[in-house]
Amino acid sequence: MPKGKKQLDNTILDIAAALKLSPATISRALNDGVYVKAETKKKVLDMAQKLGYRRNLMASSLRSNKTNTIGLIVPRISMFFHAEVITTIQNELHKVGYNLIICQSNDSLQLEKELANTMFSSRVDGVIAACTLQTEDFSHFDIFVSNNIPVVFYDRVPTKPYNATIIKGDDFRGGYLATQHLLELGCKRIAHISGPLISNLYIDRSMGYKKALAEHNLPINEDLIFYQELTHENARKAMEKMFERPIKPDAVFASNDLSAIAVLEFAREHNIAVPEDLKIVGYSNDVRTEIIRPSITTIEQFPVLMGIEVVEELMKKLNDKTSESETTEQEEVIIKSVQLIRRMST
Amino acid sequence: MPKGKKQLDNTILDIAAALKLSPATISRALNDGVYVKAETKKKVLDMAQKLGYRRNLMASSLRSNKTNTIGLIVPRISMFFHAEVITTIQNELHKVGYNLIICQSNDSLQLEKELANTMFSSRVDGVIAACTLQTEDFSHFDIFVSNNIPVVFYDRVPTKPYNATIIKGDDFRGGYLATQHLLELGCKRIAHISGPLISNLYIDRSMGYKKALAEHNLPINEDLIFYQELTHENARKAMEKMFERPIKPDAVFASNDLSAIAVLEFAREHNIAVPEDLKIVGYSNDVRTEIIRPSITTIEQFPVLMGIEVVEELMKKLNDKTSESETTEQEEVIIKSVQLIRRMST
Repeated sequence: MPKGKKQLDNTILDIAAALKLSPATISRALNDGVYVKAETKKKVLDMAQKLGYRRNLMASSLRSNKTNTIGLIVPRISMFFHAEVITTIQNELHKVGYNLIICQSNDSLQLEKELANTMFSSRVDGVIAACTLQTEDFSHFDIFVSNNIPVVFYDRVPTKPYNATIIKGDDFRGGYLATQHLLELGCKRIAHISGPLISNLYIDRSMGYKKALAEHNLPINEDLIFYQELTHENARKAMEKMFERPIKPDAVFASNDLSAIAVLEFAREHNIAVPEDLKIVGYSNDVRTEIIRPSITTIEQFPVLMGIEVVEELMKKLNDKTSESETTEQEEVIIKSVQLIRRMST
Repeated sequence: MPKGKKQLDNTILDIAAALKLSPATISRALNDGVYVKAETKKKVLDMAQKLGYRRNLMASSLRSNKTNTIGLIVPRISMFFHAEVITTIQNELHKVGYNLIICQSNDSLQLEKELANTMFSSRVDGVIAACTLQTEDFSHFDIFVSNNIPVVFYDRVPTKPYNATIIKGDDFRGGYLATQHLLELGCKRIAHISGPLISNLYIDRSMGYKKALAEHNLPINEDLIFYQELTHENARKAMEKMFERPIKPDAVFASNDLSAIAVLEFAREHNIAVPEDLKIVGYSNDVRTEIIRPSITTIEQFPVLMGIEVVEELMKKLNDKTSESETTEQEEVIIKSVQLIRRMST
């Protein structure tokens, strides 16, 4: 953590604690924001002086026209994993005096492009994004980079070099753990319902799946792998196709929990016993996988850790920038924590 | 629907269709937005002229400095009902050339106040809000009203007169239907887990519960009613309290689905047979109520209808304003559709 940051945060937090005001209010008062009463401003500045707050440090740390607002673009706010990451990001940002505005791309690239403009118009100080599954070209984020507004991508990130911070989970290991677990239980014909291979998520999870099979000297059977949009309907179609054939799979590793739930429902309707005749592993530990019966084994991604890391990296960038040690290279952070949660479906 | 609106929308939509561009782009081009290429602007203006678009109408309908952005403040984006309303609002707004930015109050009044300022700084053209359960005073929305920026409240709305449009579900009828259903099944001791009586939602649902009991000449037993924050833990505590007593309830009507799920889990753990010995009704038709076993009877609130109505009313206000027929009174719309979805828990 750069020294400048620590001091900045502590100053704001100390003043906030001393005056029993929110960090956001302190930050606004120090920035001479228009929505802070003159009286409050005076109180804050007095307390800052009392606590030994150094005007020059603050002045150099805070660029003019700061809005103390960070913009976030996500595919769908209702996805369990994203909802958890967003809430963590919001809480962490609030501690250091920033508020969050959120836009939902509905997984549409066209809308994501428009929303990047909307965020820019809203004069955000920084941007956080998890991209759509179709985003291959990230040039709609250039407007931020070229205006010195830091960008942090998380979860769904550029697969080609891009001048931003990238934070992703260890999807390769997640895919490996899921498949390894099924292999250890004696499964020989493990199907894989994957998302499209444009997204880093599904590329990495599939590679983990293949690696585990290879380690057990099992062939990659393309008849058992489906690369498709991960909808409820598509998962059912994949199951129909596989169960029409004479030799059926004995397990399914689905790259998201929605598909795993669809697989379980298909099994129920066709009197396929889970886990006896078919074992199922999902991905993300969606709240529904625990509630459904049989409950579904899945991969925990630790969204809270990801949210904390996103804010940590964004703050680093916001402070680095003002200390003029501009970095123009892509930085990548991988959240190593992934864990198999074993439940009734295996 | 005022005449002005119809013409405005059709103009944008017709041009969008003719040029195969998004309504948002057309709207920005007509507003001389900075993020639209000069070439595109020319195309749009040419097409507008060709289709008989009247410059004066547009000019009077669109105030200067429009950002084409609407701000939304909600308690929690991950709540199933809100996620559905938000997605509908976003899709409806997009059809008429607006993008949506979302803020999450985490059900904190302090944060809601800050976010109102954040929204104002983001220069939104209109505001949509579902308030926290502690919001009794709505003066933090005055900044919009006094700046002629229309405000529409939905679901969680002011209980005192406020100069804004209010759109709510028929929570009284929902509470009545839930209780009526349990009474028809022969239940005599129906417990009610309610939220705090600050919020219109829980006031109305409780009144519906009491009305149904009264119609069946059953007394209101305050020992069976809990007014509390609707968390998983609080619902369990209420159950513990009731099941310690010699005479136990034969049914629970919970004012949200989260509490209904907690009630079901409590029953499972204490070997109380559902629905034989305890019948359960929740509220909102959260996706989990269908997946859990036994599945839970609940009240469908039709979030999509509410989302459509919110945008309809907001657009009316945005257009009314420019036509100078300013209304300064509170308007209230009640979405009459509520429906009991009967499942295994009753």
